[in-house]
Amino acid sequence: MTTDDPHTDPRLHLAAFLNAGPQGTVGWRHPDAGDGFLTAAHYTRIARVLEGAGFDMAFVPDSLAVPRSLGDSFDPAVTWGTGTPRLDPIPVITLMAAATEHLGVAATVSTGYQEPFHVARGMATLDHLVGGRAGWNVVTSFQDAEAQNFGQDRLPDRQTRYDRAEEFLEVTARLWDSWADDAIVADKESGVFGRPDRVRAVEHRGERFAVRGPLSVPRPPQGYPVIIQAGASPAGRDFAARWADVIFCSHESLESAVAFYTDVKSRAAAHGRDPDQLKVLPAATTVVGTDLKDALAKHEAFTELVHPEAGLSRLAYHVNVDLTRYDLDGPLPSLEEVGVEGHYREVVEFAEREKLSVREIGRWYGARTEGNMIGSAADIADTMEQWLDAGAADGFMIQATHVPAAFEEFADHVVPELRRRGLVRTAYTGGTLRDNLGLTRPARGEWRHRARPAAGGRP
Amino acid sequence: MTTDDPHTDPRLHLAAFLNAGPQGTVGWRHPDAGDGFLTAAHYTRIARVLEGAGFDMAFVPDSLAVPRSLGDSFDPAVTWGTGTPRLDPIPVITLMAAATEHLGVAATVSTGYQEPFHVARGMATLDHLVGGRAGWNVVTSFQDAEAQNFGQDRLPDRQTRYDRAEEFLEVTARLWDSWADDAIVADKESGVFGRPDRVRAVEHRGERFAVRGPLSVPRPPQGYPVIIQAGASPAGRDFAARWADVIFCSHESLESAVAFYTDVKSRAAAHGRDPDQLKVLPAATTVVGTDLKDALAKHEAFTELVHPEAGLSRLAYHVNVDLTRYDLDGPLPSLEEVGVEGHYREVVEFAEREKLSVREIGRWYGARTEGNMIGSAADIADTMEQWLDAGAADGFMIQATHVPAAFEEFADHVVPELRRRGLVRTAYTGGTLRDNLGLTRPARGEWRHRARPAAGGRP
Repeated sequence: MTTDDPHTDPRLHLAAFLNAGPQGTVGWRHPDAGDGFLTAAHYTRIARVLEGAGFDMAFVPDSLAVPRSLGDSFDPAVTWGTGTPRLDPIPVITLMAAATEHLGVAATVSTGYQEPFHVARGMATLDHLVGGRAGWNVVTSFQDAEAQNFGQDRLPDRQTRYDRAEEFLEVTARLWDSWADDAIVADKESGVFGRPDRVRAVEHRGERFAVRGPLSVPRPPQGYPVIIQAGASPAGRDFAARWADVIFCSHESLESAVAFYTDVKSRAAAHGRDPDQLKVLPAATTVVGTDLKDALAKHEAFTELVHPEAGLSRLAYHVNVDLTRYDLDGPLPSLEEVGVEGHYREVVEFAEREKLSVREIGRWYGARTEGNMIGSAADIADTMEQWLDAGAADGFMIQATHVPAAFEEFADHVVPELRRRGLVRTAYTGGTLRDNLGLTRPARGEWRHRARPAAGGRP
Repeated sequence: MTTDDPHTDPRLHLAAFLNAGPQGTVGWRHPDAGDGFLTAAHYTRIARVLEGAGFDMAFVPDSLAVPRSLGDSFDPAVTWGTGTPRLDPIPVITLMAAATEHLGVAATVSTGYQEPFHVARGMATLDHLVGGRAGWNVVTSFQDAEAQNFGQDRLPDRQTRYDRAEEFLEVTARLWDSWADDAIVADKESGVFGRPDRVRAVEHRGERFAVRGPLSVPRPPQGYPVIIQAGASPAGRDFAARWADVIFCSHESLESAVAFYTDVKSRAAAHGRDPDQLKVLPAATTVVGTDLKDALAKHEAFTELVHPEAGLSRLAYHVNVDLTRYDLDGPLPSLEEVGVEGHYREVVEFAEREKLSVREIGRWYGARTEGNMIGSAADIADTMEQWLDAGAADGFMIQATHVPAAFEEFADHVVPELRRRGLVRTAYTGGTLRDNLGLTRPARGEWRHRARPAAGGRP
């Protein structure tokens, strides 16, 4: 399959992971990093680079708090830029869409602290205004600091969060479906504006939400904006297999990526969906050089910029352990001492194996990126093609170490190589983000097929 | 005072009232009305017209429901376009700002069904991305139908709504103030991103909201985005006199406008504010012709387009009485029969005086616009100048019968006349919406001066 035929769906879908703020722990500090992360020009420039490279979409993550990582203080986050500042993604992606014609734009919105009516209306509005190019990354949030900005002391547990997300998605999709696609007539001659029988209320009265509807915005051009999800837990996978059009994930090995890909595709099939209508995009942080040695040198130079305490701040953000209270030149405290499982266990094991000090762990963790692909353009294209062939991916979520430069390097060097292999589009052929991704447009009422079957059984 | 000196603040400020949807009951049906109200091009075209005419800002109203006006059905709203559809204003004004360089953009956001953290973050984000040109029209909502989209059966009473708005504004302003203006350093050489001591939490625990903060976005370029309010009740006036930078109002006579202007300016002074730092903009619906006769003919042609039931739907939306249940060619039911006071009393009195049938009332009410100014460009400029001289206005909120044409006519005919008189700017001299309006930038901590003094006394 090649993209010489402009009507061919590309095999390799490209999304760009872009913070609405400084990019990563150290991305702001790179000599080639732009400092305009509070300006429109920064985002529109990146949008045009991505469109030139045939990307399906830009993807903006989110967090609803300044991370409280060290000693329950927000200081280090500010000092070293760990995820702060973080702009509201909606105006950011609106500007990126306005600067382009084909690029899809997706924003992260948590179901934890929003109302379905607001999200349904905002996403429907955006989808109309940008001609069917909007996407919604559904998250349930993960920090106590976020809950504390919305009247709660602590983050609800995972099951509670997913139960809320489930009801949230059902109401949102029903609001999108409250107008038939042909509800508006707007016939000036007769004075008939719309067809009343083609708009209906929602009348939802659930455990968490009561929403009468209808939405005040007609059905989105895409039916539903593209729904993206990144849950890795069993609850998250089940939710994504039913609701998501795109799954974003992160895997350090081809084997775990294949296992994940196989699992979520079969979950989708088990729910009666065409597995090809669920696209899986693992993270890929690319560092491209003239050859492997050059790329490794680039990566090393990037790592050198990491402030060790910025890395410790990031680690604390992820596992809630403040290592700055320990001797920076001493060994990592044991699992018994700090009592955190999971991700922290892996870090301790790595530190013991490599005999790293707290300071060295900080530098390593701060420079850590997801799905590293380091090498020449051909090396990176080889890896990507290998993942496609192995059934590990339908494309990649490209993460940049610093912006816009790392996206520009990817566009200038890796994309031409991928295009030579017929993997990435040379021109856009469809009008919407669903078209970019090879996804069909949901018919009105599609929510019934995606919602979790009710205990009592839903018709 | 003339605008020949580019550093002179114009005497007459211009805002444009623009629905994010069809304009008014019949605006969509006018032969010159654009039909692109779901497209970006529609809004960006209008934005450029307004900027060419030296407007201070575009202003987008909002409503969080399809009006349930007749027989508790939403049908007529859809059939005749009474305020439906209504897009989310935020993406709309983002696009309008992206298409311009100087025009301020203001969106309506209700405090009734939002969270202060979301609104503070969204407005701060927008203000950064559009270079200090954002405004927020604070409303408390007024329909049961809105409450019913957010888990409530009925709209809370006015005092409850304003109490919530008061706490909402205080938290929002404190979130904007949680970063000092110089908190970000972003020094690549040293690796210092920010000054921790220049960012602080909010730690608000009030009756309705608990918000820890800080905001995840630096202090907005304008300090606070421009705050707009339109409350006409005593509670609304007191709120606006403390919090608002701009008051939007509607008066059918010069006398009532002068009385209102005098009242809110003296309320502001009583709260220790410079009354000149509170701008009052009455509504003006302009219909401009070559002379008065031509303008009246234009207005008549507009009225002819009104579907009588669209007018009744609008009346029902405002006073909650469904007149379509009565004989359309019979007289208006009496106040005793339907039992609604206030605005409906005025309508009944008008109908009795003019001997209008239900159908005729529908046509009249549907065509009714606020602050009509009908005549030649010189006539309209005369009226505006008279209102300025009488102390009734600091400018006007221009309402268009249909868009973009009516704004284009205003820009092409009335604005040149206003510029000849030195009342409207010929070029923008400042960088922000506050600069456009002649408003100073609030210092950090300004919220203390605007908040309602607490029962126990606030320092």
